[in-house]
Order: sequence, then structure tokens, then C-alpha cells
Amino acid sequence: MNKLFINADGIEAFEKQHRINLINSIGGFKSVVLVGTKNQHAENLAIFSSLVHIGAHPPLVGLIFRPSPPERDTYQNILDTGFYTINHINSSFFKQAHQTSARYDAGISEFTEVGLTPEYKEAFQAPFVKESTIQLGVEFRDKFEIHLNNTTMIIGEITQIHIPKIFLNEDGFVDLTASDCITCSGLDSYHSTQQLDRLSYAKPNLPVTSLLKND
Amino acid sequence: MNKLFINADGIEAFEKQHRINLINSIGGFKSVVLVGTKNQHAENLAIFSSLVHIGAHPPLVGLIFRPSPPERDTYQNILDTGFYTINHINSSFFKQAHQTSARYDAGISEFTEVGLTPEYKEAFQAPFVKESTIQLGVEFRDKFEIHLNNTTMIIGEITQIHIPKIFLNEDGFVDLTASDCITCSGLDSYHSTQQLDRLSYAKPNLPVTSLLKND
Repeated sequence: MNKLFINADGIEAFEKQHRINLINSIGGFKSVVLVGTKNQHAENLAIFSSLVHIGAHPPLVGLIFRPSPPERDTYQNILDTGFYTINHINSSFFKQAHQTSARYDAGISEFTEVGLTPEYKEAFQAPFVKESTIQLGVEFRDKFEIHLNNTTMIIGEITQIHIPKIFLNEDGFVDLTASDCITCSGLDSYHSTQQLDRLSYAKPNLPVTSLLKND
Repeated sequence: MNKLFINADGIEAFEKQHRINLINSIGGFKSVVLVGTKNQHAENLAIFSSLVHIGAHPPLVGLIFRPSPPERDTYQNILDTGFYTINHINSSFFKQAHQTSARYDAGISEFTEVGLTPEYKEAFQAPFVKESTIQLGVEFRDKFEIHLNNTTMIIGEITQIHIPKIFLNEDGFVDLTASDCITCSGLDSYHSTQQLDRLSYAKPNLPVTSLLKND
């Protein structure tokens, strides 16, 4: 298939919103989650598509923050309290999840505005999203300033997992497709998934095999 | 739906491989790509599921590296040469892409071993994967040591994009579902996608609408 070639000058020459759409989608599908926080005045809920796995032991995840609302409120709440929740987005409420990216005034709760329900449990000091099938409680551990574009990576440790037992396989694998967890591309496109296969651990000179039972 | 609650002690108590499977999949679907590099002796190709969008202007992406092969070879090549490619994985060759994670001896090319084709073009100093529908040329810009678990984040700037014109929308959005770009979960599960919708830019007190034409 013939390909269009776009070089650095071509990327730079695009109109701003065109470049934002292009670069946000060109890296492939992304994890998309709702991050719940609170401060002394209000609860906050913001959608993020920059979640990245940092390591399993300790269980660490990273998120990228830019210096603008509503991410800025979430950022400040995480630094002030040390606690945040990461909540999966299901196909039944992805429009409400997207709506949290609107620039509400400070002191306004996105939970209330978009119609999702804050849930407090197991003494965790940040609100979960009650509608989310899978919920994580995360505690702040470190942050890195990315001076190239004035963003910040925040790294947290997963200290609570709330998950329906039926989506947790015997070997620890989470069946995201069965749980109706969705993925996103770019800034505004949401997708459900279909599992192609689970593959065996790869070894030199040995063909990979399916881990799925044919039943 | 009743949920299982796993706290920090519970996560710590899991058998190692169980914890790896759990934490690698609990964060949601991930971008999964092949990273192509070369040194004076050989070409290298490695699968990564830690790609994260850092920003659009300049166009920056991050990748997390752990201090073990085959990621270590890729890491060293990036630092030595400054150049790497990011290649989308399509459903026709995800098993070959997975096979690149086998621990081949140094000097062995994963391209040859798994049966994918190195492609050099537009004077870029690292090999693309010829079979990939969408290919990116990336130049090293910065790195951060994550001391919490001895990993490194490498940040690069996208300086080349190779994409079939039919997958690039007028507004810059890349239609990943149409391009047969796949996503992954955990260490070994691969998924195709189905678009639910593209939504309008969210504003307070205004319902989001679909950006897709009904034709």
C-alpha cells in the first residue's frame, strides 16, 4: 500500500488542531481511565489517556499531566493529599467520561455535572467511580518534570484493587474485553475490543502457542 | 456486581508471575508497537506496550525500558545512534511481533528470526518494519531514571510519519481501527477494536455529540 510521507517540517506546518489530532492518535490505542481526587472543597474527576505501566513489583503506574485545567486540579489534589483513584471506563458511560474533560469552574464537581457517582470504601481517601467495573486506589510516589514541553509525569503505587472475581483469571490476567473496559484513540474516539488470542511466553526457536482453551 | 478487594498486602503476597500478569493488565488496554534499531553489528526489533503520548508540539512519545534483554539492546542502540522506529502491529503478524520478545543472543536479528522485513527509506538511520501499515521515525530527545524500580523512560520526537492516505482523516485523526492496528492487554493478549464513536469537544452544560457522519 502506497504511503504518504510526512517529515518534521510537514508535522510542524500543520494547523494546530490538525497536529494535535494526528499526534494524539498516531501512537496507537491507549488506556483511558477516570482519575478521582478530592480536596477540602470539592471532588474532582478527570479523563486521562496517558496511563503507562511502570512496573509490577512494586505495582507502579505513570500519568502525564499538562499545566492546564481540568488536569491541573487533579494534579494539585494528588500532590496535596497523596491519594487518587483510577477507574475503568465501560461502554455504558463513555460519553459521561468524555464530558469530564470540559473546563468546569473550580469548586464544581465533575461527578455531579456528568452524572457519575462518587464511592468511598475501605478507608481510601479519594473517591472511586461507582459505575466502573474495575477500580484502583493509588498512592503518590514520585514525579518528574519533562522540560521538553512543560509536562509532568506522576508515578503512583496501586494499593487497592476492586475487581469482580469473574474477570480475574487464575493466573492473574484481567479479562478486560469481558469486563467491557474500552480503549481510546486520539482525543475523542472510543473503542470496544475483541480478543484475537493470548500467546505463550516467547522462546528462541519455539513457535508461540495459544493460551486460550478451546471450549 | 460484587467485587473482590485486594489491598497492598494482598498484591505483595501474590506469586511473582501472578502479580506480573495482574499488574500488567489492570491498567487497561495499551498501545503495542515494534521498535526497530540497529548498531554496527546487527538490527534489533523489540515489542513494547509502554508507549505514552507526551505532547503534540513538539511531537513527543515516551517508552519505558527495564534493564533486561531484549529491551536492553534496543535501549543501547537508541542511546548510541539517537534513532529508532515505532511500527504499528496488525492482526496479520501479531504472533511474529510477540515472538520478538524471546531472549535471542546478541548479534541475532529479530527481524530474521521472526520473519519480518527491515525497510530503510527517506535517509532514516534505523530500520522500519515493512509489514507495518503505519511507521514512525523517532529521534532521541531525553531520558529519565525511575529509581523506584530501576527503569528508564526514553522520550523521542517523531520526525517521520509513513501512513496510507486513506487512514488519515481530514482533521488529522488517524483511523486506527480501519488501519487494522491492534491493542494489547497484559503481557500476551492481543485485541482488535471496533469504534464506538468519536465525540465532540466537551464544554460545560452542553451535551457531547457524535463527530461521525451517518452515511
